[in-house]
Amino acid sequence: MKKKRYEKLAEDIAALIHGGVLQAGERIPSIRSACAAWTVSPATVFKAYYLLESRGLIQARAKSGYYVQTQPKASGLASSIATTPSEQGAVKTPTIVQVSDLVFSLLESVRDRSIVPLGSAFPDPALFPVQRLAKSAAHALRFVQPETLVTDMPLGVVELRRQIAQRYALADVRLSPDEVMITTGAMEALNLCLQAVTKPGDYVAIESPAFYASLQVLERLQLKAVEIPVGPQGMDIDLLQQALGQYPLKACWLMSSFQNPTGASLSDASKQQLVELLTQHQVPLIEDDVYHELYFGTQPPKPAKAFDHDGWVMHCSSFSKCLAPGYRVGWVNAGRFSQQVQRLKLMTTISPSIPAQAALADYLQHGGYDRHLRKLRQHLQQQYQAMVAAIQRHFPDDTQISEPDGGYFLWLTLNPAINSLTVFQQALVEGISIAPGPMFSASQQFGHCIRLNYGALKVEEIEFSIKRLAGLIDGVG
Amino acid sequence: MKKKRYEKLAEDIAALIHGGVLQAGERIPSIRSACAAWTVSPATVFKAYYLLESRGLIQARAKSGYYVQTQPKASGLASSIATTPSEQGAVKTPTIVQVSDLVFSLLESVRDRSIVPLGSAFPDPALFPVQRLAKSAAHALRFVQPETLVTDMPLGVVELRRQIAQRYALADVRLSPDEVMITTGAMEALNLCLQAVTKPGDYVAIESPAFYASLQVLERLQLKAVEIPVGPQGMDIDLLQQALGQYPLKACWLMSSFQNPTGASLSDASKQQLVELLTQHQVPLIEDDVYHELYFGTQPPKPAKAFDHDGWVMHCSSFSKCLAPGYRVGWVNAGRFSQQVQRLKLMTTISPSIPAQAALADYLQHGGYDRHLRKLRQHLQQQYQAMVAAIQRHFPDDTQISEPDGGYFLWLTLNPAINSLTVFQQALVEGISIAPGPMFSASQQFGHCIRLNYGALKVEEIEFSIKRLAGLIDGVG
Repeated sequence: MKKKRYEKLAEDIAALIHGGVLQAGERIPSIRSACAAWTVSPATVFKAYYLLESRGLIQARAKSGYYVQTQPKASGLASSIATTPSEQGAVKTPTIVQVSDLVFSLLESVRDRSIVPLGSAFPDPALFPVQRLAKSAAHALRFVQPETLVTDMPLGVVELRRQIAQRYALADVRLSPDEVMITTGAMEALNLCLQAVTKPGDYVAIESPAFYASLQVLERLQLKAVEIPVGPQGMDIDLLQQALGQYPLKACWLMSSFQNPTGASLSDASKQQLVELLTQHQVPLIEDDVYHELYFGTQPPKPAKAFDHDGWVMHCSSFSKCLAPGYRVGWVNAGRFSQQVQRLKLMTTISPSIPAQAALADYLQHGGYDRHLRKLRQHLQQQYQAMVAAIQRHFPDDTQISEPDGGYFLWLTLNPAINSLTVFQQALVEGISIAPGPMFSASQQFGHCIRLNYGALKVEEIEFSIKRLAGLIDGVG
Repeated sequence: MKKKRYEKLAEDIAALIHGGVLQAGERIPSIRSACAAWTVSPATVFKAYYLLESRGLIQARAKSGYYVQTQPKASGLASSIATTPSEQGAVKTPTIVQVSDLVFSLLESVRDRSIVPLGSAFPDPALFPVQRLAKSAAHALRFVQPETLVTDMPLGVVELRRQIAQRYALADVRLSPDEVMITTGAMEALNLCLQAVTKPGDYVAIESPAFYASLQVLERLQLKAVEIPVGPQGMDIDLLQQALGQYPLKACWLMSSFQNPTGASLSDASKQQLVELLTQHQVPLIEDDVYHELYFGTQPPKPAKAFDHDGWVMHCSSFSKCLAPGYRVGWVNAGRFSQQVQRLKLMTTISPSIPAQAALADYLQHGGYDRHLRKLRQHLQQQYQAMVAAIQRHFPDDTQISEPDGGYFLWLTLNPAINSLTVFQQALVEGISIAPGPMFSASQQFGHCIRLNYGALKVEEIEFSIKRLAGLIDGVG
């Protein structure tokens, strides 16, 4: 059998090592210079290096590159199972078995503060008015009525619900404070909504790519995902309509604005069409709208809820992405499903923290929320511009970059030859986290896509990190 | 057909109304004085009043009694479906269909501050150091590191976990802070534990009577309840052993100390026997230990967890009952199931409020928790004594009263002729909530039992409320 090109290259390099041209501990050529030197593609070099590594001849070192093993293993014994870099480095390489395991690996990596958090789901905590919130907490708690600690539990602190109803009004949704139920973040709200309208085995329409947590919830509740593609204009509503004809969908779960991971938003017309379509089929829409305050323009996007006249839209959001991460205060306006959702909450967590709610209610009244949001939006837009510029400078020319109008995620489509899971593993070794495409897919698609968080780094850190990541992608390609 | 006694009485009273003897808006005789006046049983009077009410001639007023309708309806039209009192009064009478509906009715009634909360699951909020906690919150938040708002989410605030580990040591359980995971109250912890070890259709051993929330969780997760009787010494372990032989139990969920609703506690020897039995069968024990700090003696009870050497006990508790209601901070030490439980939490609520955790961590370090607990225990014991004395004075002689060594619940076994659901409904009309026995049973047992919360009232309010409740039970009997 004719040897493949990378196998030939690996043999050549092995010969250099055995011949003493490349000595133990010596750095071997970077992927880029190897390409130039041997006129091969980056993919060929990467595969060759991977093979050499699996044979114990070279090893990856964190934040550096590939080196000749100091004690080369017997070179003839090519293991069919590659030794993953992590077994030598400090960072654990995940076992990629299913979405949940991959997601948990990512979450663990993000927790490690020495890792550059491009894969994080949270923006830089320094962007939030932590001290001003503390002042509000102190003020609110000084005047809290002890009995409200119990009586406010089912729906949440009334002043907070009133403030949220006011903000809904700005987004063209009119409702009373009693139609808002406070939850432990939007995540709880979304979980409760899906649970309220489904049974194990049911079909649920979700986006493709989708926020990974929605995939985990479907896994946990044993629901079947009907994946509807998301383009630059959001979910493909024509395909959703087809799916409604093909499957007895029990819910449709989506992010209507600044979708995670693509950043795409539906237009107002599409939102209206979506709500009308689902209402007509009596299929509840679970609308995850956690990024709605993070728009770049001058006007907030309308939620799909604004077009809901019959209560089929369950609108979920939170303060975690725009004001108070860690406070774990979200909410749901569950339309016609409000009672079921409330009862499920009382059966599982009863209530989110009342002091945290009281603090936010005080802040919303007196803290200057709109001023904070203006600054935050401006800052995120600067980070966005810095990251796009850095990617254009350093990433391969064939990289496609999404063009979000808000939020803090970029979705990159790389050359199809690039395996984003390999990039994920290699980047972790180098001290950078990214979110690889398959995390966002029930069917493990988007193998050559990655999600980057531009809100997680200071503007001045972006260039350096993107450059390092680009170098690494060159190596993998 | 010969008229029944109550029908005759109702006719007599209707005649008094139509004849103008009893005028619109006038109070009609109390059940007690009606018994004396007309030499009939309280049940007869009650049924007569109920009939009159269903005919629109009289109406119940919250906290007051029965009054002649101000605008009597046509008297001849006796509806075959009685108009329930709630349709005229302020308080909704529940539809008793299943445990969940009953439980939600109770929870709603307790929320109404005009109702005397003998059915409440919470002690009087005035018993807690609300202002001192506010001071701790202000202090802790002034020094919170913004990044910990994100990094502390998976397990919880480390200083809080350290403090909890210290308190475990006092209860003879040695563990590291990393073995403690903070949850949104004990309720979330219990839910996660049960979810981690069961699938729909599985068998789970629970107490009979059991805390109603455990029944709701079983309902929600579609699990089959194997009910094991609880006596004055706690769960009957011999019967549990039999059940282990008969059913493939996937978990056993119980409260080892000051059980809700009976107040019963297992002895140390029984706890040890229980853990050994379950470990031998490799069946996880989900230990709900939320009342452990509320003991009357000089020594805290040991949790079953203290006898666990192989990690089969999942110990759940919280600060909601002993320090900080409404903060929604609980925890779990899930032994060998820690990873599954943690992952489930990350998929559903992610984390309880970090500021609430930081506040409690500060309080536990500097707030005088043990001093607070000594006062709280003393106070609860006074309330306990006052309520038992009042019951002995006013309730029928055949009432059996439980003898808890801690917590804040009394379990009363009434004459078998008394329907506690009727007592529940009537008491609500009179402005008192109680927890009727069937709430605590998967098989709707304990129809003549009620749970009273002696921690919810001020000592000086107890006598009056118990007397009113006793009068009402006389009427139902």
